[in-house]
Amino acid sequence: MDYKNDALAIHKKYKGKLGIEILPPVNEDTLTLLYSPGVAEPCKEIAVNPDLVAEYTWRQNTVAVISDGSAVLGLGNIGAKAAIPVMEGKALLMKSFANLNGVPIVLDTQDTDMIIQTVKMLAPSFGAINLEDISAPRCVIIERELEAALDIPIFHDDQHGTAIVVMAALINSLKLAQKQLADCKVVVSGAGAAGSSIIKLLHTFGCRNIVAFDVNGVITENPANDFLQAEIAELTNGVAGTTFEQAFVGADIFIGVSAAGIVKEAMIRAMNDKAIVFAMANPEPEIGYDAARAAGAFIVGTGRSDFPNQINNLLAFPGIFRGALDVGAKKITMVMKMAAVYAIADLIDDADLREDYVIASPFTEGLTEQVARAVAAAAKQG
Amino acid sequence: MDYKNDALAIHKKYKGKLGIEILPPVNEDTLTLLYSPGVAEPCKEIAVNPDLVAEYTWRQNTVAVISDGSAVLGLGNIGAKAAIPVMEGKALLMKSFANLNGVPIVLDTQDTDMIIQTVKMLAPSFGAINLEDISAPRCVIIERELEAALDIPIFHDDQHGTAIVVMAALINSLKLAQKQLADCKVVVSGAGAAGSSIIKLLHTFGCRNIVAFDVNGVITENPANDFLQAEIAELTNGVAGTTFEQAFVGADIFIGVSAAGIVKEAMIRAMNDKAIVFAMANPEPEIGYDAARAAGAFIVGTGRSDFPNQINNLLAFPGIFRGALDVGAKKITMVMKMAAVYAIADLIDDADLREDYVIASPFTEGLTEQVARAVAAAAKQG
Repeated sequence: MDYKNDALAIHKKYKGKLGIEILPPVNEDTLTLLYSPGVAEPCKEIAVNPDLVAEYTWRQNTVAVISDGSAVLGLGNIGAKAAIPVMEGKALLMKSFANLNGVPIVLDTQDTDMIIQTVKMLAPSFGAINLEDISAPRCVIIERELEAALDIPIFHDDQHGTAIVVMAALINSLKLAQKQLADCKVVVSGAGAAGSSIIKLLHTFGCRNIVAFDVNGVITENPANDFLQAEIAELTNGVAGTTFEQAFVGADIFIGVSAAGIVKEAMIRAMNDKAIVFAMANPEPEIGYDAARAAGAFIVGTGRSDFPNQINNLLAFPGIFRGALDVGAKKITMVMKMAAVYAIADLIDDADLREDYVIASPFTEGLTEQVARAVAAAAKQG
Repeated sequence: MDYKNDALAIHKKYKGKLGIEILPPVNEDTLTLLYSPGVAEPCKEIAVNPDLVAEYTWRQNTVAVISDGSAVLGLGNIGAKAAIPVMEGKALLMKSFANLNGVPIVLDTQDTDMIIQTVKMLAPSFGAINLEDISAPRCVIIERELEAALDIPIFHDDQHGTAIVVMAALINSLKLAQKQLADCKVVVSGAGAAGSSIIKLLHTFGCRNIVAFDVNGVITENPANDFLQAEIAELTNGVAGTTFEQAFVGADIFIGVSAAGIVKEAMIRAMNDKAIVFAMANPEPEIGYDAARAAGAFIVGTGRSDFPNQINNLLAFPGIFRGALDVGAKKITMVMKMAAVYAIADLIDDADLREDYVIASPFTEGLTEQVARAVAAAAKQG
């Protein structure tokens, strides 16, 4: 398929992907209710009771999709305007999969404090904030400070979306492998947005033997380059001097969110029995599906739709936002993320699990509703 | 009509008024073009040539409708969240009348510098900025600083929308009265957002005898309370000590954007022959249509749809934004505003002008297109 010409043509034809639609019928009669003078009535109600903004406006159904263009897809730091097609795409997915209004917002700054301040200023406009394609470790700081400052859900999908789906696939894989996560040795490659969240989730789910690598090698407590590396070091068991190759020896699980082709077949062969390999570098994985299987991996997943076990964060974020907004949650807590993990894992009955079917398709019927219900229930538990 | 219950009911039924719609067809095939991996193509094109953002995204069709909630309708300073119904209403009008995507943005600040900075940060996301319901004189500072800083049109409708429509109605009224604006004495009541813009436009169109009043009385050079009063004093001819009543003696034109009922029939009777009275305080004018006519006014206009000659800024802003965006204008210049004035005045043929028909209805067929064409042509003149 000629992606380039077709992709440019469809974007040009529709002038992007989104429009604003008007929900009520518009005529001279309804205009007096929807605009002056009638519009004063909901304004006055909300002025007295700000919670009524959820009843009388689009806000509780509306999510800002915010980026500074610093880490867009695999393209890197392409800036604000060039990031708009991706933000429109994310909004399109929110609408298609969760009937949410995503509003693309790209910022004319990559300064962490300025981003935080700008989003704070915008917050009354939106029911939730989806941070998108902001480079690590800034994305982690931005998300934390906004969570602390605002009373609406903040979710950086590049961190948590992938982590939640990986964890769901891992739970199902471990059932087939008949292993417990607490007994497993895990090698993680990539310690940016996704990697750091994966490591935190692995730890939350009881894993205590994790060795993490970034481009500079194994992550240990000393020296840590930044606060995020220091936090990762706390949760992992890297020993100075360990090579990437050495780490694979006896490992049960490999999780890659790093770079194409860095895992060799010999490394897979050095892993423990019933090895689980999630190689999610995009568009080319750390090791291909077929190569990893040929080298003896028990279960292999990638980010690609043209191979089995696609790890796709489209399984997670629509239902997470939908569930959080449905119950007016003020943040996306770890409990809500864990609920999403189990809801996604449970999309496949145990009896139907196979080595090439440990994670459901994002087109599974009822997916968003199932995740949303689980997340909403978890939100009520606090 | 029971505005209150009906207005609340329709806002509740539709959860506000707006939604996001997806323009291209969505299926597994198009998703590979509209999202990963195909979406990378327009991103790469825009990264190389930022002007292509107008081709491949919704930006050039999209206007932020931004408020701080400080001066909403006649309700005053009701804050950000309570302003959302009005911003959604404005977006609804933009869609209905000009097929533009209006995005409601309300800000968690009323600090002038913070508003300016926040809008600057958002600017890459939008083709134009509509400032709405921001109190004077802050609105003037905000608009000016954003115009100087950004390369997209900034338009504060509360200032210029009303002024443009008033001027169009005035041009037609003067034809019927067979007077020249340069020979007329004009009394203006109200020196906020709308009043200051009306005075500037009167001056630009050649009027040299204007007496302006605000709540504190006649505006003169000394003392001016703020920069905006000082600017108004420069363009007007107020003499210290002149009362509102005295100013009407021999006046040809009264323009009110102030408060209900402050103009008495005796004042109208003191005006010159063929007096023109635009009393636009909302919802109750400075003097009612019938009362002003009974007192001898030749032509009367108000903001009300239930009397003749409604001065409605819906005649102006949809076509102004449409025209400016169609040609990629970088600002809304005075020449463009003047072009809009003439285009709106010309919606009524001279032969059809009557004392009770000096301004067209906002539902006139072809209105937006006619204003847009005139504004676009003026934009090209620079």
